[in-house]
Amino acid sequence: MSYELYYWPMIQGRGEFVRLALEEAGADYVDVARGPEGVSAMMRMMESVEHPPFAPPFLKDGDLVIGQTPAILLYLGARHGLAPKDPAGGLWTHQVQLTISDFVAEAHDTHHPVAVSLYYEDQKDEARLRAKEFRQNRIPKFLGWFENVLARNPSGGPHLVGTAVTYADLSLFQVVEGLSYAFPKTTRRALKDAPRIAVLHEAVAERPRIKAYLRSERRIPFNEEGLFRHYPELEE
Amino acid sequence: MSYELYYWPMIQGRGEFVRLALEEAGADYVDVARGPEGVSAMMRMMESVEHPPFAPPFLKDGDLVIGQTPAILLYLGARHGLAPKDPAGGLWTHQVQLTISDFVAEAHDTHHPVAVSLYYEDQKDEARLRAKEFRQNRIPKFLGWFENVLARNPSGGPHLVGTAVTYADLSLFQVVEGLSYAFPKTTRRALKDAPRIAVLHEAVAERPRIKAYLRSERRIPFNEEGLFRHYPELEE
Repeated sequence: MSYELYYWPMIQGRGEFVRLALEEAGADYVDVARGPEGVSAMMRMMESVEHPPFAPPFLKDGDLVIGQTPAILLYLGARHGLAPKDPAGGLWTHQVQLTISDFVAEAHDTHHPVAVSLYYEDQKDEARLRAKEFRQNRIPKFLGWFENVLARNPSGGPHLVGTAVTYADLSLFQVVEGLSYAFPKTTRRALKDAPRIAVLHEAVAERPRIKAYLRSERRIPFNEEGLFRHYPELEE
Repeated sequence: MSYELYYWPMIQGRGEFVRLALEEAGADYVDVARGPEGVSAMMRMMESVEHPPFAPPFLKDGDLVIGQTPAILLYLGARHGLAPKDPAGGLWTHQVQLTISDFVAEAHDTHHPVAVSLYYEDQKDEARLRAKEFRQNRIPKFLGWFENVLARNPSGGPHLVGTAVTYADLSLFQVVEGLSYAFPKTTRRALKDAPRIAVLHEAVAERPRIKAYLRSERRIPFNEEGLFRHYPELEE
């Protein structure tokens, strides 16, 4: 039986971290809200299940409904060899992913520093301040940490954890993609100080299943409804 | 061998979620940065380990060093019976905890909406806007979700998951404590619409080990250096 992924159909957003794991795994899945039933199928599911997700994305596998991106990846990682099998390695992969989630939440807040219930246009002044902090302090701090994790991995390869690709590698690839879209100048400069992250990003892009996915219709282009948005004024 | 908890010594902060789990478990632990070696021991550890945590809190158990509050609780929950043993129940507990973490991050941002590198006093205007959104929209949305989770739990008891206390219950207790400190009027009103959460909060406070902990010197009082801060102007 195939997985059912529930997420907003018009954006990459947080759902993209799950899509990348499913694609790399070669898993059979349906992106439900992009199908004929659309978003209403997602809303119905959120309201009816015993374990309601707080927000999309969520994944349905038979009777099991899992929300929260890091929890979904914890589940998929164990089932599809996208995380080490030993408990300590699995937990470390998850810890890296949770740090990616924190970074992503901060990237989102650059365009919504005051209220998710308001439009970007209603919080542009505050967004400028928050984006400046994000560019100057937070991007270097987070990328510095990931670079350090790569440097300390004794395997030496382009992997955050162990000797093989994990969902954390796929997620860091996606973060670089998103940052490069939202803050192109900042990210280009920052990656010069993070050569291992740049190598990881290229290595993931070249993985056959990821490469095919990125070229497919299934990969939604970045846009200004999503998590990573390109507002040139936020990079000034 | 006892656990070593590493966290800022002057605040409850995110470390408190771990402290509550350790206390409820009756686990032997050392709160290292509150001891003679202070914060410098924490900093040395962060810089020297193969798996460096991005930020405190982190927990050391023998050779294992685990960062990220939800990952620490996932680990402790499985070892000390603070989560269901079946994989689906364990994952659901974790999903609830991740949603608590999201809520807590938003609570933090009410006093730091622009930059963690700046003082509250330098972002008071933006804090007022963000706090208003948090009080009016986010507190009702999150508490509504937790209330719904309690209502849908077939066990009927004051537990988010299953029939026994989990680390998620302890964490929701702490969120209510923090919100009651930071936004007392708002929280008092909000809990009238969330009677199950109010009952859970009281039930956790009455657990013998938690009760003893809350009365001990180990429980640091809330203050304006922590995650939950009381600035009366943010509730106007």
